[in-house]
Amino acid sequence: MSIRVGILGYGNLGRGVECAIKQNDDMELVAVFTRRNPSDLSILTKDVKVCSINDVEEWKDKIDVMVLCGGSATDLPKQTPEYASMFNVIDSFDTHAKIPEHFQNVDKAAKAGGNVAIISSGWDPGMFSLNRLYASAVLPQGNDYTFWGKGVSQGHSDAIRRIDGVKDARQYTVPVEAALESVRHGENPELSTRQKHTRECYVVLEEGADAQKIEEEIKTMPNYFADYDTTVYFISEEELQRNHSGIPHGGFVLRSGKTGWNNENSHLIEYSLKLDSNPEFTASVIVAYARAVYRLAQEGQSGCKTVFDIAPAYLSAMSNEELREKML
Amino acid sequence: MSIRVGILGYGNLGRGVECAIKQNDDMELVAVFTRRNPSDLSILTKDVKVCSINDVEEWKDKIDVMVLCGGSATDLPKQTPEYASMFNVIDSFDTHAKIPEHFQNVDKAAKAGGNVAIISSGWDPGMFSLNRLYASAVLPQGNDYTFWGKGVSQGHSDAIRRIDGVKDARQYTVPVEAALESVRHGENPELSTRQKHTRECYVVLEEGADAQKIEEEIKTMPNYFADYDTTVYFISEEELQRNHSGIPHGGFVLRSGKTGWNNENSHLIEYSLKLDSNPEFTASVIVAYARAVYRLAQEGQSGCKTVFDIAPAYLSAMSNEELREKML
Repeated sequence: MSIRVGILGYGNLGRGVECAIKQNDDMELVAVFTRRNPSDLSILTKDVKVCSINDVEEWKDKIDVMVLCGGSATDLPKQTPEYASMFNVIDSFDTHAKIPEHFQNVDKAAKAGGNVAIISSGWDPGMFSLNRLYASAVLPQGNDYTFWGKGVSQGHSDAIRRIDGVKDARQYTVPVEAALESVRHGENPELSTRQKHTRECYVVLEEGADAQKIEEEIKTMPNYFADYDTTVYFISEEELQRNHSGIPHGGFVLRSGKTGWNNENSHLIEYSLKLDSNPEFTASVIVAYARAVYRLAQEGQSGCKTVFDIAPAYLSAMSNEELREKML
Repeated sequence: MSIRVGILGYGNLGRGVECAIKQNDDMELVAVFTRRNPSDLSILTKDVKVCSINDVEEWKDKIDVMVLCGGSATDLPKQTPEYASMFNVIDSFDTHAKIPEHFQNVDKAAKAGGNVAIISSGWDPGMFSLNRLYASAVLPQGNDYTFWGKGVSQGHSDAIRRIDGVKDARQYTVPVEAALESVRHGENPELSTRQKHTRECYVVLEEGADAQKIEEEIKTMPNYFADYDTTVYFISEEELQRNHSGIPHGGFVLRSGKTGWNNENSHLIEYSLKLDSNPEFTASVIVAYARAVYRLAQEGQSGCKTVFDIAPAYLSAMSNEELREKML
């Protein structure tokens, strides 16, 4: 029998989850839930129902895992606890500083409902977090480095779009190659924000907008750009569509550490991702962890978990015997 | 209270475990067991007893985890089941083809003794296996590639040393850069053994040995060299000591995969290790998993596990709360 999956929220991430389910033979999409008018929404999978989020309770016994595809700013802090009381759920909550609070809220709701929840799955938090943990456990004497990019930052792109006179914009976060190389050579550099990443902005202006003023406004924007070396390119709307319509991302997690009686030997662990589509890869990670949600629920567990609490074998469609034979 | 660790077998790996324990404040080395005469063995840690392997049973209640540092060919197939009936144990059994059989034997003994055993920890099997599993679970439509090196292969070095007229030798396994690049570019190449790795041999001859004949014998040696492009360098004993006395190793696990409704987006996951000391890094992984052995035993579990069965949080000295706050 397949794992029956529901998707709640159908943006880029929800669509990515739909695509990922298609790649996993032991899973089946049974319904998509939306805040919009269901008849206005057309999804990719044939013969799967689009339902109003208001009717979600009727699906309580027809869905094994509900994948919550809302945003971390306002949707998930409310939705994940709310739906964890009804369903086994998984989200990709990515506001790192608020994870402990989110965990508490979801844990309480999931336990009360007798359900399993996994929060903050994806790649950061997610695969990158796993690599930070494994590497630091294996090399306790060492330094961690996480670099992001080259990739599109949605939040920074939005920040530029909010400036008066800006019609559209795309912002790329770019790791500084020299900093990466220094880490790879075991130099254990202390890196400031500016030394780790640069920011490239591709901006389409409204007619008559003051380019120089807008460039200045971007480069001095606190939190978003002021601490970085930022380059602004003004381009046409056509060029933005042609060359910057993808949502690539990726990055690097490195740990350089020492071993030996006198720390005489050096080691480098490096994990990297190069992603054509940030939401589709995030969705693929979520769907693998949705399998773990299902299995933990089958075992009778309940409460909130993170990627740190899940034994890797739970993610794979293979049996433990097959994994030991083929993957170990 | 510290986790009390014993080491059984004191070669390069045992010494590496000793060094790794020193880096972990929650662990304590309590005894080293040897087949040699204990008084002939001097270890690095002060005030720790060296004991005969024959007296190991007396330590039954004084050791939380016994780290088995024997070889995979003949030691571990016997030792791990034998000691799993007395102690919680961990090994780095690395004969991939025989892992299922070893697992069965150890599982039976560990369950009978009410102990926890983790087998095949290290980096391959070990960290590389984890990365193969995670990557294939996340990108089910894709291809896996494992490359080893550049690093010293002990087995291949030994094979050369067994040739008549060879005084000493060191063999490096080297990944083929062009093959790696092809994988990184998502070309999904089908790679033969020869296309993935080359072998470099540094050989010291006995006086009067026939260099040409020995070179031919190495290059045509079945299983070890015949399927590879092999280069043989004859060097002096001094040069071997000066330039080839380390035991570096490392390698790459890559998975390139597709996502999207029509597999239209490509992704690359790459994990790599660059290790100054193969045995010390292996030992560092073992010691992190020894922590997991201890914790599972504290929970009352028993039986044989592999890295696939261990939730990552068990490896870290940090609490779950701290991990969520700092690492997620």
